Amino acid sequence: MSGDLFLYNTLTRSKEKFVPLNPPHVGMYVCGPTVYSNPHLGHARPAVTFDVLFRYLKHLGYKVRYVRNITDVGHLEDEMAGEGEDRILKKARLEQLEPMEVVQQYTNSFHAIMEKLNVLPPSIEPRASGHIIEQIELIRVLLEKGFAYESNGSVYFDLPAYNRLYKYGKLSGRVLEDLMTDTRKLDGQQEKRSPYDFALWKKADDSHLMKWPSPWSTGFPGWHLECSAMSGKYLGETFDIHGGGMDLIFPHHECELAQSVAAQGHDAVKYWIHNNMITINGQKMARSLNNFITLSEVFSGSHPLLVKAYSPMTVRFYILQAHYGSTLDFSNEALGAAEQGLARLYKGMEVLEKVIPSGSPGEVVKNLAQQVGDALSDNLNTPIALSRLFDGIRLINAVKDGNSTISAYEKEELINLYKTVVFDIMGLQPETEGRKDKADLVKKLVDMLLQYRVEAKAKKDFAASDNIRERLTEMGVIVRDTKDGFEWELKD
Amino acid sequence: MSGDLFLYNTLTRSKEKFVPLNPPHVGMYVCGPTVYSNPHLGHARPAVTFDVLFRYLKHLGYKVRYVRNITDVGHLEDEMAGEGEDRILKKARLEQLEPMEVVQQYTNSFHAIMEKLNVLPPSIEPRASGHIIEQIELIRVLLEKGFAYESNGSVYFDLPAYNRLYKYGKLSGRVLEDLMTDTRKLDGQQEKRSPYDFALWKKADDSHLMKWPSPWSTGFPGWHLECSAMSGKYLGETFDIHGGGMDLIFPHHECELAQSVAAQGHDAVKYWIHNNMITINGQKMARSLNNFITLSEVFSGSHPLLVKAYSPMTVRFYILQAHYGSTLDFSNEALGAAEQGLARLYKGMEVLEKVIPSGSPGEVVKNLAQQVGDALSDNLNTPIALSRLFDGIRLINAVKDGNSTISAYEKEELINLYKTVVFDIMGLQPETEGRKDKADLVKKLVDMLLQYRVEAKAKKDFAASDNIRERLTEMGVIVRDTKDGFEWELKD
Repeated sequence: MSGDLFLYNTLTRSKEKFVPLNPPHVGMYVCGPTVYSNPHLGHARPAVTFDVLFRYLKHLGYKVRYVRNITDVGHLEDEMAGEGEDRILKKARLEQLEPMEVVQQYTNSFHAIMEKLNVLPPSIEPRASGHIIEQIELIRVLLEKGFAYESNGSVYFDLPAYNRLYKYGKLSGRVLEDLMTDTRKLDGQQEKRSPYDFALWKKADDSHLMKWPSPWSTGFPGWHLECSAMSGKYLGETFDIHGGGMDLIFPHHECELAQSVAAQGHDAVKYWIHNNMITINGQKMARSLNNFITLSEVFSGSHPLLVKAYSPMTVRFYILQAHYGSTLDFSNEALGAAEQGLARLYKGMEVLEKVIPSGSPGEVVKNLAQQVGDALSDNLNTPIALSRLFDGIRLINAVKDGNSTISAYEKEELINLYKTVVFDIMGLQPETEGRKDKADLVKKLVDMLLQYRVEAKAKKDFAASDNIRERLTEMGVIVRDTKDGFEWELKD
Repeated sequence: MSGDLFLYNTLTRSKEKFVPLNPPHVGMYVCGPTVYSNPHLGHARPAVTFDVLFRYLKHLGYKVRYVRNITDVGHLEDEMAGEGEDRILKKARLEQLEPMEVVQQYTNSFHAIMEKLNVLPPSIEPRASGHIIEQIELIRVLLEKGFAYESNGSVYFDLPAYNRLYKYGKLSGRVLEDLMTDTRKLDGQQEKRSPYDFALWKKADDSHLMKWPSPWSTGFPGWHLECSAMSGKYLGETFDIHGGGMDLIFPHHECELAQSVAAQGHDAVKYWIHNNMITINGQKMARSLNNFITLSEVFSGSHPLLVKAYSPMTVRFYILQAHYGSTLDFSNEALGAAEQGLARLYKGMEVLEKVIPSGSPGEVVKNLAQQVGDALSDNLNTPIALSRLFDGIRLINAVKDGNSTISAYEKEELINLYKTVVFDIMGLQPETEGRKDKADLVKKLVDMLLQYRVEAKAKKDFAASDNIRERLTEMGVIVRDTKDGFEWELKD
């Protein structure tokens, strides 16, 4: 597999040949999770997408420094307006924990889920709260250059000042003047000179738990600033790739870009890459929209929308079957099809190991490797690459059925191709059959017992219904009643 | 299990009754790894020791906030003199990586090993490099109070000044005047007024990769300071327990203590707890002494000194079989004995599940629970607790062999005791925990459903009883009626 890699650059709205700034090194920054909740299906998509890009770049021979941050401070409830409560502090208040305990708990659960999805750890995983000094230094520069102003202990980015010199909105295509016209005056923004100015530093009140001293006030950094400071620290003033979900293009990445240009006088990022969303009934799956299914629920089948449990590799295959730039709608049918597709792929690889070579070498293998490589190099087109791999499996089955032949050399090459693409690049790994089956069996058994509980309740036999719930709790099956019925999960 | 917990306090050189400052809350800080290498057998000891303390405190009903840091900057090669190269920077130079890549790689491998050893993650795991501001603030206080001085951009703790007001050395029993007499003048210490003064902040030269701005210079913090700043941030000005290996008593913990007393005018820590060392041929196992065996090597048996592979639970049992305050010498014999001991313990627990109760209740169970609890509460005496558990297993075997009896109530209590102590407190787990757990859950769920079937039959509701059987069959759970009741198995 060789040839040039092309990637769709959101900044230029075109597929561009990938030419790193400093080959063979590649610097890649991807926005990581805000650790205040368990990861849901939507989080699997950027994780898998950029994992495949990371793996493919390494396969192509690049030395990749992949930085994916942990946002543990400053991500506010209403990210559009840059207002509201810090998401982690809100969770800490609800769960009565010190904020860093919340951060630790959800960082751990994020890592555990990533491991199940076979997502490689990044080279560096910086935490926002661990880089306050770097953020303060960047704010100093922005103030010195006249692109920020202090107001009542907080510091804001001066968008009109920036817009006069540079064009704001070049990543998202938004135009500042239009935004301003559309914006109604929001409460609590009196500190800002202009409604779209965004916070670089926020003064904290006395009750605020996560705060640090700064030249302007005891406070905390703005969310957009964190990524600029951390990417700059570990990847330098300019670097190759910045990735994330499309929902981050505006305002998060647009603001990051503005901060870098304002501070440096030039762009930091060469290629902006964005994955599309996982949708459910056509709407983006998001915690803030409350239409999400956590990945633990997917793996155990415990969410009412799931007809069965789907394994981590099924989820990975489901994501790979769509191009990262397209939306991907959640449905049991799609996940079921992914499960079958994955099984067919593994089955084909098993057959390949066993077919008996004969005949003279053809052009099949060379073409196949070329085709798969072309697909991956064409903006990481994993669905086409998979489709070519399935073409290969039809050929393998034809050999098995005596309708075609394969040489020993070809067989060897094919085995190597499938292992490289399926395991190393796509990051799929065989699952132990037993465990997958067990998860599904547990779901069926629990559902059957909960059905008895529904019947007991209908008969007003509350002793029986409570008994079922208590006994399940003892086994580590936590049942919660909801307004629509109930949901359950396995205690971890 | 109840009664008072007694712990050996290094500070008072006596076993003391544990009385938390703010019950039911307990704050515990333990020095975590310097992440520049793969963890070795020596690292397993503090990890397991304080994991058992964490588990036991929770078992006793305390709400524990357990903070274990990651040292990712400032730990120098020669920790006694506080000189030499930063350990992580040296590794980064040798491996040609950015220092934070080294940190990430070894933090990941540390976590993976901890998970294998079934060591629970701490409540908060702060990184030293993520708390530079807090460290700078603490240095400011020490300078203001006259216990530190700036010298050429670095800041040192003024030990003679401290010693005039407070007694330095109360944790380790060292006397400053004696230390000074014994010390030869070291190179590169001209900045210090007194040879035992230690660095709070070190000015970095241009080639130094990990450095931050400060009021004194662009530089990096001292190792001792990091722990004081992080423990203070997450546990407050005073907290209950500070733990670590005995090799940390001097100078690391002695310096931490001095920093806290100097800054606050009083001690921060109520109980200082230290585990003893794992030795090899009588010498402490340490990376710096180059006589270590990594835990990965232990688990795979790949080190030339190992005659076989030992599982993570064997290592855990090996550590628990010695009191944490005693040295523990490495040998294949000791690890082999631990492997056998662990197998004997599990076997005994299996026998217990199967023995048939009869006879009248005795005093055995109550005494056993009491004895095990007494041992654990007596300065965490795990070897005595294990020895009592083995006494119980002799009794269980006697029942099995018909030489003794046990009541149904006693059996239930014993099962509960062994599970609580062996799994929850000692943190031992059957080797294939994950898979066995699911298998166990399936067994419990099926048993519960079959009990409904028995009840349906008793009520002559044969439609319901047949329905349960049919639905289980569909799921692959085959139920067979026998003359004593029924049995079932999973179709595969």
